[in-house]
Amino acid sequence: MKPYANMSASELSALKNELEEAFSKHKAKGKKLNMTRGVPSDEQLSLCNEMLTCLSAEDYKAANGTDCRNYGGLDGIPEVKKIFADLLDLSADEVIVGGNSSLALMFDNVAVNVSHGVRDGKPWQSQGQVKFLCPSPGYDRHFTICNYFHIDMIPIGMGDDGPDMDEIEKMVSSDPMIKGIWCVPKYSNPTGIVYSEETVRRFSKLKPAADDFRIYWDNAYGFHDLYESKAVIPNIIRLCEEEGNPNMVYVFSSFSKVSFAGASITCMASSKSNCEYIRRRLTAQTIGPDKLNQLRHARFFKDSSGVLSHMEKHASILRPKFKLVSDMLQKELGGLDIARWTEPKGGYFVSFDSLEGCAKRIVALCAEAGVALTPAGATYPNSNDPKDNNIRIAPTCPPLAELSEALEIFCAAVKLASAQKYLNA
Amino acid sequence: MKPYANMSASELSALKNELEEAFSKHKAKGKKLNMTRGVPSDEQLSLCNEMLTCLSAEDYKAANGTDCRNYGGLDGIPEVKKIFADLLDLSADEVIVGGNSSLALMFDNVAVNVSHGVRDGKPWQSQGQVKFLCPSPGYDRHFTICNYFHIDMIPIGMGDDGPDMDEIEKMVSSDPMIKGIWCVPKYSNPTGIVYSEETVRRFSKLKPAADDFRIYWDNAYGFHDLYESKAVIPNIIRLCEEEGNPNMVYVFSSFSKVSFAGASITCMASSKSNCEYIRRRLTAQTIGPDKLNQLRHARFFKDSSGVLSHMEKHASILRPKFKLVSDMLQKELGGLDIARWTEPKGGYFVSFDSLEGCAKRIVALCAEAGVALTPAGATYPNSNDPKDNNIRIAPTCPPLAELSEALEIFCAAVKLASAQKYLNA
Repeated sequence: MKPYANMSASELSALKNELEEAFSKHKAKGKKLNMTRGVPSDEQLSLCNEMLTCLSAEDYKAANGTDCRNYGGLDGIPEVKKIFADLLDLSADEVIVGGNSSLALMFDNVAVNVSHGVRDGKPWQSQGQVKFLCPSPGYDRHFTICNYFHIDMIPIGMGDDGPDMDEIEKMVSSDPMIKGIWCVPKYSNPTGIVYSEETVRRFSKLKPAADDFRIYWDNAYGFHDLYESKAVIPNIIRLCEEEGNPNMVYVFSSFSKVSFAGASITCMASSKSNCEYIRRRLTAQTIGPDKLNQLRHARFFKDSSGVLSHMEKHASILRPKFKLVSDMLQKELGGLDIARWTEPKGGYFVSFDSLEGCAKRIVALCAEAGVALTPAGATYPNSNDPKDNNIRIAPTCPPLAELSEALEIFCAAVKLASAQKYLNA
Repeated sequence: MKPYANMSASELSALKNELEEAFSKHKAKGKKLNMTRGVPSDEQLSLCNEMLTCLSAEDYKAANGTDCRNYGGLDGIPEVKKIFADLLDLSADEVIVGGNSSLALMFDNVAVNVSHGVRDGKPWQSQGQVKFLCPSPGYDRHFTICNYFHIDMIPIGMGDDGPDMDEIEKMVSSDPMIKGIWCVPKYSNPTGIVYSEETVRRFSKLKPAADDFRIYWDNAYGFHDLYESKAVIPNIIRLCEEEGNPNMVYVFSSFSKVSFAGASITCMASSKSNCEYIRRRLTAQTIGPDKLNQLRHARFFKDSSGVLSHMEKHASILRPKFKLVSDMLQKELGGLDIARWTEPKGGYFVSFDSLEGCAKRIVALCAEAGVALTPAGATYPNSNDPKDNNIRIAPTCPPLAELSEALEIFCAAVKLASAQKYLNA
């Protein structure tokens, strides 16, 4: 098959009819398939089932003697702080362990800066219209937090090495109303790219016009490598320290895609001094996170290398799914010049770019044929994908057979929407 | 022994010397005892140890098929919503299940009204100096939330039937900057009193000057009765509905003193319409509370009557401790006219009133003799007990023998401080 762009009108018209007929057949099958959710599969979750029973009436105390059943402890039991600190290459007093939702840690951290200011500085809310930089496509729930707090979002282009650092440096150093930036530095959601060493270094060297500018470094996929050769990114906290910006970054980490997605443990990490400020808020806010669940994680994983070897089991389950996506897209769409997609080496998503103006149409077609996709545009601030061409593919949850069926319908939709676009052009 | 007030100066002086000598002996023993914490004892926590192992690799799904290990579900699995709804005599859609900290639910609920306003009304923060009414003595962590959000606190006197409703009605109906009130309606912290039916009805009939006034109804001890004859308070949500104030109250409930204090489940309850608003915020804020821990609670307690019969086991452990406090205070201090104390029928505290100006001194003396008490004043807004006479006694955690030793020292301190006061008067 030759590129659609090179086809004549009559070739395209014939192709479109053929594709429509094929698509009707897909619709007639009445499938119900779901590729919307970046969630672990049953098989992945079951890797941790031992954690459901690993505590007992004889085992509920942390190493420091804390009765994990009772009140007490705001920021994590020692064994879990150590696991996070080792994974992030930090010290335990740079880590604050949270509950089961790192999103909640991020939300709270924006909330406190909005209402109380960064480190008792002027609250963002009383400084005028606050803005965040939003490398896009990015994670929709970061954008939802900005929306919730009426923070303007400025999209920043994403390349293979990370976001457009020239643009970021220029804007951050010139506009004091830019107070933050969302980053997913490793296996970025949704593109799967890994920030280069150069990119991370440039982040640490930022000279913000606002002294209350903060980097929200959501390292959600920090140990979520698919292959033996693992991506490594520099330690942003150490780099910021070296550059004299020790308090500029908040790092977030989560076991949501390590243990149980809905019942995991999370942490935020930052300079010791930032952590002290945050603990003061925690004293007013909560009795502290569930220590029994922390202890379950400590018992099951034992230490940071236990976590890393566990991640290899996840990788064995996920590799064939990512390979299937890559193989099917290549087989169905390769050479047609109607799409590009990423081939991530980790994380949870494949980012797919259709012809401009086709993403919404493709998602709608898929819905007609019973395949649920993440809404087109969701990966952009305010769900506004200016080119209407980005679609996030989430291959982790469906079993291989279902994933294959869903991709078949997806590719048929892409071809049909593309042929229609060229015909109408 | 006759009342100190009736003693002559020489009698008092002799008494003071005698008490000082006795107290030196207590100090010499070098005890380390803790009566500060309103926390369950090891024995109480162990009542739930089965919960540590009640799930398994074959049992992790909720009744509606939800895999509790995975993402999904913002406000509780059906079986836990039903348990809370039954306990509170509400319907499930009036209940939002939270994580392990009801304090966090209260904090969040103040936070959202401060930053976003009540039901999208004008944010409290942009209306000027917000005030809360604070029946006192009360729960210090309520006051901490107000402090955190720079909310002025107005103390309201507490009687045996609840707070001074005349005062509350007058202030709430006349001052539009009064936006909230903290209530612990059953076995109030720390006095242990139960709001009368009349008091609860008057709350529901409030006609606030501010249409964004809210009652924070922290029913922390809703099923924490010590005796078979249980206190019953009217359903504030239904009453508010009947009075045409359906959205005026947020109710909070918690299993912190039912199951594991640090790893329990909590809920907030309000009108369906309020709950819908709150769910919108939750969508931005979190992936939702830990459903596996909810399922543990559902498996262990089965239903609301399972909870209530479990509470009888707590009562059997707690009754002798409260009796010991009552007996020892009566034996050591009865008839001296230097103190009053409450005899609660439930909850976690005994509230003790010394002579005016003596509470700080008593707590300091106890500290010298190795008995840690809640800081004097903690039960008042800004830790400011105007009479310096209230002390919160928390008898639940220490074993009986330790509690007895601690109370002996406490009574010795009360007598000494009182004799000193009369001598210096």
